[in-house]
Amino acid sequence: MGHRTQIGWTLPAVHCHNRFIVHCDRLTCPRHALTACAMSDTVSPLARPFPNLPAIAGVTLRVVRAGYKDWGRCDLTYVELAKGTAVAGVFTRNVCCSSEVELGRANVAGGMARALVVNAGNSNAFTGYRGREAVEQIMDQVAAHLGCAREQVFVSSTGVIGMPLPKDKAREGVAAALSAAPCSWEQAAETISTTDTFAKGATATAMIGDTRITISAIIKGSGMIAPDMATMLGYLFTDAAVESAFLQECLSAANRRTFSCITVDSDTSTSDTVLAFATGKAGNAPLASFDSAGADAFAAAIEDVCRQLAHLVVRDGEGASKFIAVSVTGAVSDESAHRVGLAIANSPLVKTAIAGEDANWGRVVMAVGKAGEPADRDRLSIGFGGVWCAREGLPLADYDEAPVAAHLKGQDIDIAVDLGLGQGRATVWTCDLTHGYISINADYRS
Amino acid sequence: MGHRTQIGWTLPAVHCHNRFIVHCDRLTCPRHALTACAMSDTVSPLARPFPNLPAIAGVTLRVVRAGYKDWGRCDLTYVELAKGTAVAGVFTRNVCCSSEVELGRANVAGGMARALVVNAGNSNAFTGYRGREAVEQIMDQVAAHLGCAREQVFVSSTGVIGMPLPKDKAREGVAAALSAAPCSWEQAAETISTTDTFAKGATATAMIGDTRITISAIIKGSGMIAPDMATMLGYLFTDAAVESAFLQECLSAANRRTFSCITVDSDTSTSDTVLAFATGKAGNAPLASFDSAGADAFAAAIEDVCRQLAHLVVRDGEGASKFIAVSVTGAVSDESAHRVGLAIANSPLVKTAIAGEDANWGRVVMAVGKAGEPADRDRLSIGFGGVWCAREGLPLADYDEAPVAAHLKGQDIDIAVDLGLGQGRATVWTCDLTHGYISINADYRS
Repeated sequence: MGHRTQIGWTLPAVHCHNRFIVHCDRLTCPRHALTACAMSDTVSPLARPFPNLPAIAGVTLRVVRAGYKDWGRCDLTYVELAKGTAVAGVFTRNVCCSSEVELGRANVAGGMARALVVNAGNSNAFTGYRGREAVEQIMDQVAAHLGCAREQVFVSSTGVIGMPLPKDKAREGVAAALSAAPCSWEQAAETISTTDTFAKGATATAMIGDTRITISAIIKGSGMIAPDMATMLGYLFTDAAVESAFLQECLSAANRRTFSCITVDSDTSTSDTVLAFATGKAGNAPLASFDSAGADAFAAAIEDVCRQLAHLVVRDGEGASKFIAVSVTGAVSDESAHRVGLAIANSPLVKTAIAGEDANWGRVVMAVGKAGEPADRDRLSIGFGGVWCAREGLPLADYDEAPVAAHLKGQDIDIAVDLGLGQGRATVWTCDLTHGYISINADYRS
Repeated sequence: MGHRTQIGWTLPAVHCHNRFIVHCDRLTCPRHALTACAMSDTVSPLARPFPNLPAIAGVTLRVVRAGYKDWGRCDLTYVELAKGTAVAGVFTRNVCCSSEVELGRANVAGGMARALVVNAGNSNAFTGYRGREAVEQIMDQVAAHLGCAREQVFVSSTGVIGMPLPKDKAREGVAAALSAAPCSWEQAAETISTTDTFAKGATATAMIGDTRITISAIIKGSGMIAPDMATMLGYLFTDAAVESAFLQECLSAANRRTFSCITVDSDTSTSDTVLAFATGKAGNAPLASFDSAGADAFAAAIEDVCRQLAHLVVRDGEGASKFIAVSVTGAVSDESAHRVGLAIANSPLVKTAIAGEDANWGRVVMAVGKAGEPADRDRLSIGFGGVWCAREGLPLADYDEAPVAAHLKGQDIDIAVDLGLGQGRATVWTCDLTHGYISINADYRS
């Protein structure tokens, strides 16, 4: 299992009492021996405490230890969903995707879900027909137990690539999970994690007519998006009654403005998956389109939760010491602004400059110029923390670096770019590039 | 001035005797007090000794200290070219390019050159009209001295961004350079350098009919291609008689197969420039097209020199400890193979795995999948050092990691990818991503 370097990081004082764990320093400590524990020795300095997530009617969480790796923690999460639960999903665009992604994409078309199984420790990617058979076995096993179609069982796997998921461990793990005691959101969030340094969850509510609906969600991901242990897997659960087509519309729109706007290292996992499940137990009049009463509020709540989750992934970015928001305005279109923002957020030179607390706006100029989008050097303005360094192609004559330097010493960094061409705008989020990233990824398998 | 970390690097035993330099540890030691000396404290472990470059008839090199920065080294290179010298050039595609690039691109259209001036320590990029005035002043000053059109004077600048090149220092520096004593290729190569850790040169010869022609060339660049001190600037000089249009054809073709096939960090400088000058002093029958006798040999020699220079830039990649060749075969086209190769070579996860001497072929799968090019997971093969790890979408059953692990401990790493789709092929070159890169770029301005 990979572990985090301590360079620049603070070891929390609270230690884990989990008796299976040797190396365990976490902000929160599991209370049960079988709860998943630390995937890492140290916690990101940008970590957030796990929020108090409300239960969702029609959703039952269970975790067990399937033993996919030689580790003393739970690594199989099983979520049972009430009959009638609608489902929507967004998946990686990586053409070398896993069988889980292929089957999940097909199953989402059916619109209904009864269960979710998440395996941690083995991504089952690039394992050909043997990997596919393992996923189908899990689908069949759960479907037989629940008496549902196997297309209503969703499977995700995250971990090392190129090793077929062991069918025997999966079979025994699933069998144990079907009858395990229910667990908490935090335990589920820990169990789906791998190299993450803290458990991640988010919640939001909305009113649909007179009915209050709730969304609770968990995510794992650290490094956007490493192919091994750092794949992004996110799951949203709501008690709202929502038709699957409209749930998909809300999730896809939210994805474009949240998960598609984060990057840690520009790499794209073979397994990235975000699924949304709506049990309908809240009893609202079902949402079928934006014409339904309360649909706007529901869509806003979905986007709110997705943004919270996306930011948490960046905050656990491998080696991250700064959370960076890049706001691009004045582009010829929103899409163009988005691509310019990603060029900046993916530039190793920009990211190392922020790590060094260096107001090196010249590197931002470079990144804008290489984005392949319309830009005019002589209309370009660059700023940090609300202070312009350069306006319309020239360094400011009275530029005072002191407030910018102070801003860069903080943990939350704002980069502003105005292209001066049109009304297009976008914000993307990333983290800095540090020695920690190198240590994590150069030492990962060894 | 930036300096290199010592992580993983060996300090050479030979010290520099240049009396202006305090920190100076180099493989080669300048023999004159005014010669440019170390840009860095340590030398890349992948460094190559400076080759013995032949003089080129019609080319005279001179270096002086203009004092663009507060450093004790030469920083202005002046190259005088015989009347009738043809010129060709390739330039950065960064839309935020410098005035030097804009004017150089325009001047190349004229096809003739009499002089080259290279300023080190200030890139003069993003400096608006004031930066442009400084370049035009240099062009006018040299043109008046030589009695030529100012369009025949080429200027490059490399160094920090956003500060207009000081006109007074440029004027005095150029005045001194016009009458300075001629210097060696190595002194010129050192003077155009900034964060480079070793001076870089290459040579080749070819027969045109019965005439032997020679190419000598120098380059600077470290990090492909940082916007500050690590911009790539390359200059080829030949005594061959070549019409400028054909010289451009040869240089552009060579560029596509050499400089366009290297990457250190995926960033693209605002100032990248490669110029080729042909003085015609060898006396061969002028080359006008590939129909001319000897044209193929000349084009091959140009490409040979460009490839040598390109590899040297990668060998001085910021923080590099491994030289990596990525060979892609079986793509639907050569262009597709090139883009897949660059996706692999630019992947931080692949580059950190190589730094960690980790045969993590799953990361190569990921990079292939995210390239946006046609690929089929179940036809994909991946290998290191001539040994396949996975064939046609499956890990090899009898895969023996021992020879691969031994290969990865070396300095020169080969990654092979076969897409199994067609006949397209390409090779790209890069270096690994190490703590050294972070140290150099996070600490750069501080």
